[in-house]
Order: sequence, then C-alpha cells, then structure tokens
Amino acid sequence: MSLLTVGSVAFDALETPFGKTEKIIGGAATYITLSASYFTSKNNLVAVVGGDFPASMIELLQDHGVNTDGLEIVQDGKTFFWSGKYHNDMNSRDTVEVQLNVMENFNPQIPDNYQDCQFLMLGNTAPAIQNLVLERLHNRPKFVLLDTMNLWIDIALADLQVLLPKVDCLTINDEEARMLSGDYSLRRAAKTIMAMGPKTLIIKKGEHGALLFQGDDVFFCPALPLEEVFDPTGAGDTFAGGFIGYLAKTNDISFENMKSALVYGSAMASFCVEKFGTERIVNLTQDEINARVQEFVKLAGFQI
Amino acid sequence: MSLLTVGSVAFDALETPFGKTEKIIGGAATYITLSASYFTSKNNLVAVVGGDFPASMIELLQDHGVNTDGLEIVQDGKTFFWSGKYHNDMNSRDTVEVQLNVMENFNPQIPDNYQDCQFLMLGNTAPAIQNLVLERLHNRPKFVLLDTMNLWIDIALADLQVLLPKVDCLTINDEEARMLSGDYSLRRAAKTIMAMGPKTLIIKKGEHGALLFQGDDVFFCPALPLEEVFDPTGAGDTFAGGFIGYLAKTNDISFENMKSALVYGSAMASFCVEKFGTERIVNLTQDEINARVQEFVKLAGFQI
Repeated sequence: MSLLTVGSVAFDALETPFGKTEKIIGGAATYITLSASYFTSKNNLVAVVGGDFPASMIELLQDHGVNTDGLEIVQDGKTFFWSGKYHNDMNSRDTVEVQLNVMENFNPQIPDNYQDCQFLMLGNTAPAIQNLVLERLHNRPKFVLLDTMNLWIDIALADLQVLLPKVDCLTINDEEARMLSGDYSLRRAAKTIMAMGPKTLIIKKGEHGALLFQGDDVFFCPALPLEEVFDPTGAGDTFAGGFIGYLAKTNDISFENMKSALVYGSAMASFCVEKFGTERIVNLTQDEINARVQEFVKLAGFQI
Repeated sequence: MSLLTVGSVAFDALETPFGKTEKIIGGAATYITLSASYFTSKNNLVAVVGGDFPASMIELLQDHGVNTDGLEIVQDGKTFFWSGKYHNDMNSRDTVEVQLNVMENFNPQIPDNYQDCQFLMLGNTAPAIQNLVLERLHNRPKFVLLDTMNLWIDIALADLQVLLPKVDCLTINDEEARMLSGDYSLRRAAKTIMAMGPKTLIIKKGEHGALLFQGDDVFFCPALPLEEVFDPTGAGDTFAGGFIGYLAKTNDISFENMKSALVYGSAMASFCVEKFGTERIVNLTQDEINARVQEFVKLAGFQI
C-alpha cells in the first residue's frame, strides 16, 4: 500500500567521538523515506527545501523510489540546517546550531496523486503543521503514525493534544513519554498517553530497545548490541520508516504484525548507527536486512 | 542437582520513595537461596551471622528448604548490616551505613554433606573469600556462577583476576562490565571479560533487562515493565538465584537452557521489586511463577 511521509529534509553537520562531518543530507523525512524504500515502492514525500539543496540529493531519494512530487523547492530560501555534537557515551547530544530557514514557513501541500495514501507518517515537526496535513487529506488514511519531540511537548502541548486523538500510533522516546505523561513508570505513562488518543504507542529506549503498547498488550523488541555505535543521528526516524514501511508492505495493522514491524524497524535502525548520517541506509540489500532480522530472532528467541 | 550458595546473610534498613523499613533480613545469599528454593530442594547455604540474628529468620530459610548446616553463628558477634536510600528514579542509591561486623572475618567452612554440590553460587563478597570456597571443595562443581561488584573491581582486582578463570559464568551489571573491561560498548566489554576466564557472561541492565553472552552467541531477556518498582534491593541476587536454581533443577548447562534460566531469573527478580526486601519472594507459588514466565513469553515473543 502507498505511504505518505511528511517531515523535514535538511542539512546536518554532525560531530561524534569518531569524527565530524561537513553539511550532509539529513532530516526526519529523509531517513524515514529511505528506510521505508526497502519495504514499499509507493513512497511519497511532502517536504520543503531551499534553492541550496543539491539536485543530486533529490536524485538519491528518487533512485530509492521516493516520489518527490511533494518536495517543494523554495528557490530563494535556504534549507533547514541542524548541527549537533554527541557526548562520549552517544546517549546524549548537544544541539550546536539550528537554522529553521524554509521550515519556518512550511505549508505542506498534498499532490493529488498522493491523496490515495493508506499509510501516513507524520515525521517530527510542529504539531500545527502535522494537523494541517491531516486536514488536507480528502480521506483519512488507514493508519497514521505520529512522531514528536520534547520541544513540542514543551511549547505546543495544546496543538499536540488536538492531534493525538486523530492518530493511530505515537512514537516517542522514554524521556518524552515521561514528560508527556508526568509519570516515571513507562507502563503507567503508556496508559496515560493512550488515554490522550492513540490506540497504540511505541516508546523508544535507544540502545535499550523499544516497547509497543496497545490496550493491555505490551511487546518489547531489544536493540541489537553493537560493537560500535558510530552516529545515532536519524536512528529513530529510520526505525519509524522501517516500522511503517513494513506495515504498508504487508497491509496488516494487527498487533501481531506490528510486533514484526517493530523488529524490522529496529533492524533498520541498527544499520543506521553503523555509519555517519544516511551513509549506511542508502546501500542496503534485502539479504542484509533479512540477515539482520534473523539476528534479532536469535537475540530475543527462547523456548519455554 | 544440589546447589551451594556462599554469601552474606544480613540485616538491611531500606528507604525508598514509598517508605522506609527497620532492620529486615537481607544479604545476597538470603535472596539467592530463597529464590532458588522454588527450583531445587537441595539448597545449601554457607554464611555467617552474629548472635543477634533471630532464630525465626533462620527458620524462615529452613521453611523454604534451605539447608543451614553451613550457617555459622558467631554468638558474641553482630550480623552484617547495610542501610541504603534509593533516589526517586529507583535506578541509583546511596549507601547510608555499612557495618561489616562478623563478615569482616568470614572464613567459609564447607560441611561434609555439601561436598557433593554440582552447582555453586559465589554470591557477592570479597574475591579472596570466594577463592577460598573453591579451594575447600574437594571436587570442582559442574557449574560455578560468580557475582561481584564495583567495590571489588576497585580494591581487589588482582584477587578477582585469579578467580575469573576458575568460574564458568560471571554475573555483573552494565556499569561494572564497563569498569572491568574499560570499554563502553557492552558487546566488546563482553569479549574482553570472557577473555579473562568465564566462558559465559551475564550483564544485568536493571529495568532494561539482561544480556547473556557465550562465544559469539548473545541472548537478551527484557525486564518486565512494571507499573511500580517498590524496592529494587536484592533484585540482582534474586535473579541469580532463579537462574542457577533453574539450571540446578534441569541439570542442563547448554546455552539454550541458560536462555530459559535467564527468563526464570528475570521473572523472580520482577517479583522481588514489588515489595520491600524479601517480602514478595517468601510467599510465591509455582502457579504465580509460571504465569509470570508466560508474561515474558508474551512480552518478547514474535513470529517472523
């Protein structure tokens, strides 16, 4: 089934204990659509970039089957830019610089040929913009996955609270879940957040894996213990892209199938952190993905 | 098969955000033997207490089938005492007071009727004492599980390095694994530590689950996401007791069976934290344990 992703396409400059990059391609929607491209060929993007965004990077997305009809190019504008520096343990980072640029006036337009999308990924951006996307779709998609972050919980909670009842699933990290619910216990936090609207909730715990909640059901998928985490940038988006890409491919939103989707998403994220930026996830093969998923089966499987 | 546990039997005084206790029964060997009692009836204890230790607490252990022939009572001595206070997130604690008392001169003696033990649990205490236990056993047990802590890595590393090649499995937490290996990556830390001697390594991550390493194999068991963690004291020991108790019961030390043992250990630990001290693990039924293990099956199981 067709997937529509709305979110940022950006330049990132990254520094980790292993080195630093110049401006490279980044942004939530970049990671999401690249990751999802391994699962679905109907992979539609709505985003905005400036005239400084290289055509070669748009071609890179197109080469992965991403439909860029919805990628607005503001010729006299500059592309959203983020630079960050990771601490030694890779679990925390500082934002060094943010230039919103064209994202400041992002007004998402849905091309007609995207209107039939069945799966919608609202990548992390202002909840008001995410709301606009839902309003501009003629039919509600079968499944809407929402990502957000601490910033919006902090400064746009009212907008977020309007949005939450309209989505099927929310994906946030543990810190954000505690912030949004006001509860330290993730089990209780999950109940509180699901009561705000989404029937299903994913809580990402980085190197500690991810939890999937729905009603009283809970599923846990570990993160693969890696020898080296090179750069965690985009791991959460790559995870989300693999998750919803797998759901779109299988067109099955049962809890059982979401478990598998969580494993595929985790497998994609485990590739993402192995190299800088999108470097690892632009060159994957289906065999590599299947082999990685089998590592998860081995890691988590037991017989009692 | 018979299990021998050597370690502390103590008084604890605990303070958590939920309340505080007077002196209650604690100590690594207490939690280990109580937890193992649900798996094996040949449950032998070597420890030392003072004349102040109540007979009722020894009877409590005996009522759980623990053989206390090896429990030395120093009539004019005082029992090891520890008091600690947990922070709000329950993941860190401060030691308020430690009185070594009779533990200072603990000289473990192995009763003759313990000499046939096949499974040996060296609960957390000075590595020199743990070494003595191995020397005083006429035959090497089939399986030796060692627990240690940051204190010994810090002040008794040489003793620990002598001990490590003599044990089959080491159980430590993530912080200790990083400390002992000098490596942040747990995957690499595991290799480094296994090269120090133990063929198998368990790295406990508290609320984030536990990893089991052997050669190139790795297995991950999640912790059960609980609504409330009441008191984490003894969770690691209860985990170890369930793990080695299950191995002793099944008399199977294959990697596959160790996976199951890890799940049973995790299930026992999930009970432990639900109440203060040993309160929850002294009153369990087999049905409760089996139901809890099924929760882990549900939590971690997926089909791909």
